Amino acid sequence: MKTLNTNKNSDPHRTYLSEDQIPTQWYNIRADMKTKPAPILHPGTFEPLTKEELTPIFAEKLVDQELDNTTPYIDIPDEVREIYKMYRPSPLIRAYNLEKALDTPAKIYYKFEGNNTSGSHKLNSAIAQVYYAKEQGLAGMTTETGAGQWGTAMAEACSLFNMPLIVYMVKVSYEQKPFRRTVMQTFDAEVYPSPSDHTEIGRKILAENPGTGGSLGCAISEAVETAVSKEGYRYFLGSCLNYVILHQSVIGIEAKMAMDSLGEYPDVVVGCAGGGSNLGGLISEYVHDKLTGKGNPRLLAIEPASCPSLTRGKYAYDFADTGRITPLCKMHTVGSQFIPSPDHAGGLRFHGMSPILSQLYTDGILEAQAVGQLDVFDAAVLFAKTETILPAPESAHAILGAINEAKLCRESGEQKTILFGLTGTGYFDMTAYDYYLSGKMENNSLSEDDLQRSLSMLPQVPGM
Amino acid sequence: MKTLNTNKNSDPHRTYLSEDQIPTQWYNIRADMKTKPAPILHPGTFEPLTKEELTPIFAEKLVDQELDNTTPYIDIPDEVREIYKMYRPSPLIRAYNLEKALDTPAKIYYKFEGNNTSGSHKLNSAIAQVYYAKEQGLAGMTTETGAGQWGTAMAEACSLFNMPLIVYMVKVSYEQKPFRRTVMQTFDAEVYPSPSDHTEIGRKILAENPGTGGSLGCAISEAVETAVSKEGYRYFLGSCLNYVILHQSVIGIEAKMAMDSLGEYPDVVVGCAGGGSNLGGLISEYVHDKLTGKGNPRLLAIEPASCPSLTRGKYAYDFADTGRITPLCKMHTVGSQFIPSPDHAGGLRFHGMSPILSQLYTDGILEAQAVGQLDVFDAAVLFAKTETILPAPESAHAILGAINEAKLCRESGEQKTILFGLTGTGYFDMTAYDYYLSGKMENNSLSEDDLQRSLSMLPQVPGM
Repeated sequence: MKTLNTNKNSDPHRTYLSEDQIPTQWYNIRADMKTKPAPILHPGTFEPLTKEELTPIFAEKLVDQELDNTTPYIDIPDEVREIYKMYRPSPLIRAYNLEKALDTPAKIYYKFEGNNTSGSHKLNSAIAQVYYAKEQGLAGMTTETGAGQWGTAMAEACSLFNMPLIVYMVKVSYEQKPFRRTVMQTFDAEVYPSPSDHTEIGRKILAENPGTGGSLGCAISEAVETAVSKEGYRYFLGSCLNYVILHQSVIGIEAKMAMDSLGEYPDVVVGCAGGGSNLGGLISEYVHDKLTGKGNPRLLAIEPASCPSLTRGKYAYDFADTGRITPLCKMHTVGSQFIPSPDHAGGLRFHGMSPILSQLYTDGILEAQAVGQLDVFDAAVLFAKTETILPAPESAHAILGAINEAKLCRESGEQKTILFGLTGTGYFDMTAYDYYLSGKMENNSLSEDDLQRSLSMLPQVPGM
Repeated sequence: MKTLNTNKNSDPHRTYLSEDQIPTQWYNIRADMKTKPAPILHPGTFEPLTKEELTPIFAEKLVDQELDNTTPYIDIPDEVREIYKMYRPSPLIRAYNLEKALDTPAKIYYKFEGNNTSGSHKLNSAIAQVYYAKEQGLAGMTTETGAGQWGTAMAEACSLFNMPLIVYMVKVSYEQKPFRRTVMQTFDAEVYPSPSDHTEIGRKILAENPGTGGSLGCAISEAVETAVSKEGYRYFLGSCLNYVILHQSVIGIEAKMAMDSLGEYPDVVVGCAGGGSNLGGLISEYVHDKLTGKGNPRLLAIEPASCPSLTRGKYAYDFADTGRITPLCKMHTVGSQFIPSPDHAGGLRFHGMSPILSQLYTDGILEAQAVGQLDVFDAAVLFAKTETILPAPESAHAILGAINEAKLCRESGEQKTILFGLTGTGYFDMTAYDYYLSGKMENNSLSEDDLQRSLSMLPQVPGM
């Protein structure tokens, strides 16, 4: 009988911390950054936005966190920690079978954040955001969702806190992923396809382009408009912003604690990068090590070649939305008017990148690679077959990054330790898998012409 | 601020055993049963089938396990245990939030088996079955799947062992759950809608009833026909049979170990009952206690009112399939010609019940209740909102059973300890949730006329 791909090693497959090891504080990377992320600007005056100007849009405590560049550790409210206990600490898993399939001397670990019904790490920030909204006495919340992970996480969190939620879901996803919508509705969320006729900006976009499938930028516009026009409502975002990266540091704090407990220190930490929420969280403690001279692992962002904000975008002020109604963030961006190629099935479609991660990339703390979607799905399927977890296409970017590093170790013979973030599961992404299995998927890449056209529409900020 | 539904108790939400606590042996309930389950009969001669007669259909080691009524503990092969480590031990979870929502003094625990990509407990037996097939040097495996959980588990297990797999999927599920099919194909399984034109029985059924959506019994017929006609292939089943209940005892052994570690002993153990695989596994150690006088918890099977094999079926010899080509099993059955009502969305559609569980029910060891699907989905949604896990409709039968017991405690003031089995997640069952959310779902129930019509077609076994 053929020897099976199983581990006889005494090290465990899964390392679980105990519930009392759930972090009591989030780590705020900015406190240790020499160059802080640039301030958020008012799109009319180009002046940095104050707390007073931001609180009509965002919940107050989140604005405090957004603007706080100096406090290194911020307490996680007890109530948030208690809810974290329903699915955290998440496991750190040794990918023994993947290692064997790759015939690599490298040790591959992954922090698995898909172990909850929302199916991704997004729940970590959703719970915190809904908590602060409830604490402030808000009447309701609005948000947008693309692939649906963030919307599902928000719906779950709102349900736990009995808080009304309005979700604008990118129309093409709304139609292609009706089951995501059903999950959100099961948790009592109101879900509209975007562009919708519920907002001025939605009606305008529909009038100009009746057949549009929408975009994340467009859905953000609608969610913000609803938040500012509806009494007691605020807008909540699941990626990119500083406070989201702060909340997601629970991933990295737990990951480092679990790695430490195994006596492991990564040579390289790999994460997928869309808006940056998972990556920023995953690497947080290792950024801390680099910034404070305690360690020097490589930190590697993997982004889709069809939406390559870090590797090919411009580091500039841009809107977060298509409708150009949000504040301006300085970030690596392919332009807020960018719309991903229709055959792009791998997620991570947001045009911009977290200002924190953009600055870390500029400072050489963070590396980035752009990869093709066909390679991403090859990695996803190899991972599913060996590790028996069907990954979200987004997460599979990190898997591919880890596999590529492990293959380099096979060539060089080095036994490096690789840690990557498996952000979620792909149960609601089977249309993309179907497309992959059809044999028609290609390694698409954003054309230089399209990139330049989109970048030419960046807002002109005086003095930048 | 409103007090949140969270636990301040020092007991953990989730109890994980360590990997070295994964059971080394399965427990064979039959060894302790005074009245053994009735033997499997040849459908032509009505004689008990011998090992020699069963091995052309089933893998040899599984036949040994099927016929072994006396060995109390059977070693789990090391290779199977190593693969179990990829997702086991599964967590035992205290449903603090559900308890609070119900305002019950009862303590509710659930053993969660949905923490793997197949999304259900079915993987426990699939891994063992594929292992034995590989060990025997078989060329390939056939099986059937209804809702898709078993097929997905088999596809995953076959992928790990690099073993070819042919799946006949009930046509109505194949069409309504295309994503289940995609998952199986991602793991390299060949998947056909049943009835298909790949088998004689399939062609016959299609000719007689061209528009049929198929049934589990029909898919079993096709899978068995393919297994016996294809060189080196065998047929593998995910429920009902004795060896499946044996493999699933890992659920119960782990559950009891985790409950013991918390100092808890259940007053009642609740499981959903389709073919009986989860329930038989979950209650195994507590059946042992009852049979050996070590404890006396109530053991409660919850089945759908539209397919009530225990509560309204006959305890009689019947075929496992519609095509009447399988051996005869003595079991509680609503008749192999039974087809569930088309508006039944809750799963658990198999017409028969595990011979072991049927005998335990007859002996008064096991109780049973039939419930309506609307009540089941009410329970599912309450559970999702409080415990943040979206349950499979099948699993929600057990949730409802546990909720009903907890409500009785609220009336009586008793602080009972309830343990139930949460067999899996509902990510691929959103069509059923959509139906529930539409407000059109009703508490359907099998009509007495339909039941009697189906029972009148039971095979006539001399002397029974």
